[in-house]
Amino acid sequence: MGENRPFDVLNGALNKPVIIRLKGGTELRGTMTAYDVHMNIVLQEAEQLENGEVKRKLGTMLVRGDSIVFFSPS
Amino acid sequence: MGENRPFDVLNGALNKPVIIRLKGGTELRGTMTAYDVHMNIVLQEAEQLENGEVKRKLGTMLVRGDSIVFFSPS
Amino acid sequence: MGENRPFDVLNGALNKPVIIRLKGGTELRGTMTAYDVHMNIVLQEAEQLENGEVKRKLGTMLVRGDSIVFFSPS
Amino acid sequence: MGENRPFDVLNGALNKPVIIRLKGGTELRGTMTAYDVHMNIVLQEAEQLENGEVKRKLGTMLVRGDSIVFFSPS
Amino acid sequence: MGENRPFDVLNGALNKPVIIRLKGGTELRGTMTAYDVHMNIVLQEAEQLENGEVKRKLGTMLVRGDSIVFFSPS
Amino acid sequence: MGENRPFDVLNGALNKPVIIRLKGGTELRGTMTAYDVHMNIVLQEAEQLENGEVKRKLGTMLVRGDSIVFFSPS
Amino acid sequence: MGENRPFDVLNGALNKPVIIRLKGGTELRGTMTAYDVHMNIVLQEAEQLENGEVKRKLGTMLVRGDSIVFFSPS
Repeated sequence: MGENRPFDVLNGALNKPVIIRLKGGTELRGTMTAYDVHMNIVLQEAEQLENGEVKRKLGTMLVRGDSIVFFSPS
Repeated sequence: MGENRPFDVLNGALNKPVIIRLKGGTELRGTMTAYDVHMNIVLQEAEQLENGEVKRKLGTMLVRGDSIVFFSPS
Repeated sequence: MGENRPFDVLNGALNKPVIIRLKGGTELRGTMTAYDVHMNIVLQEAEQLENGEVKRKLGTMLVRGDSIVFFSPS
Repeated sequence: MGENRPFDVLNGALNKPVIIRLKGGTELRGTMTAYDVHMNIVLQEAEQLENGEVKRKLGTMLVRGDSIVFFSPS
Repeated sequence: MGENRPFDVLNGALNKPVIIRLKGGTELRGTMTAYDVHMNIVLQEAEQLENGEVKRKLGTMLVRGDSIVFFSPS
Repeated sequence: MGENRPFDVLNGALNKPVIIRLKGGTELRGTMTAYDVHMNIVLQEAEQLENGEVKRKLGTMLVRGDSIVFFSPS
Repeated sequence: MGENRPFDVLNGALNKPVIIRLKGGTELRGTMTAYDVHMNIVLQEAEQLENGEVKRKLGTMLVRGDSIVFFSPS
């Protein structure tokens, strides 16, 4: 599987800003402070985006891994 | 996986007010009094929100973990 | 996980009236007489609600756990 | 989990008329002659209902458990 | 679980015409020549139906079990 | 389960043209050169069809098994 | 299962440009630098496409395997 593993991307993004796209199209933005093998992710200073616009601020948030489509360090 | 684990957010929110977003967009608000490894969650004094407005009050509620998109201490 | 477990809510609701919200938005109301670890639930004198109105009465009903969004003792 | 188990409802309904609601809203009516632990169910003299009306008669039918929302002895 | 098992219906339908309803509402008709424990099914001289009309003929077909809602010997 | 097994259809279609229908209705056409127990499938000279028309050519393609509704040697 | 295995396509595409189609129809384009047995995939210089047009550039991206419909070396 090459020298890299997908979860290296999660590890490399700890304490950095990330974007998460959820099933259904909602996106979240925040600083990732924790993740686990199910890809459950904790964001701090999280914002919920709809169509690229900040819809609201949510502070700390636990996102279920099975709701995630993709994850991108921003 | 860093020093933190996602479920620390659940543990830290015990007996505190939280917001839960469900698949389909419905949101719930209440005081979390229990959770388990499946992320099944118990809320007290729970309210069901639609578009940010309280739609009804439901008292005690057990929410299935696999219906949850994200969880946020409020 | 605190002193309480989510399934305590199910156990505490045995033989009492409950409301169940299903994926898709349909709700059921009835007296819960049994449940199992999959959250499969038996209701007696069950009623199917749509938009808060009783749509029909169904007597005894077995509800599949994986169809359930939340469960609330009423 | 009390004295009763959800699958007792299935067992008690053997060879009796039942109603099954499927994901998506279609309902089936017939005499249940077999089930298994996955809640796969066999109906005899089965009818498919849409909006409470008989849409067609299907004779013997095997219904996949994971398509079922609820099951009710009629 | 009574004297019968749901998969007896599959076994009894080997080499006979059957109707399969898929999630989403599409139906298939053909002669079943094989199945497995996942309810994956092989049809010969298969036809795809939409709203009860033959939409096209597909010859041999392997249908994934997890796409099936119900199965009926026709 | 009879003398045949569903995966015999996959094996018999190696290096032959096939049609795959995906959840959501998109169809793919190509020459199947590999498959595995999850029904993940490799097509060569693959084409994506919408409503029976070639929408685009995609060359080599790996199709996830859990996206497949049915598979037909063409 | 023939001489080839589906994951050979992933391995052969390491460090090459690929197209990924997601459930819901969104497509991603980028250079694949890692994958795992769940088909989780890392893209570099990733772009999100809607209807064949670049909607935005996302840099590094981790795509969850269970969101993927198909994968094509481009």
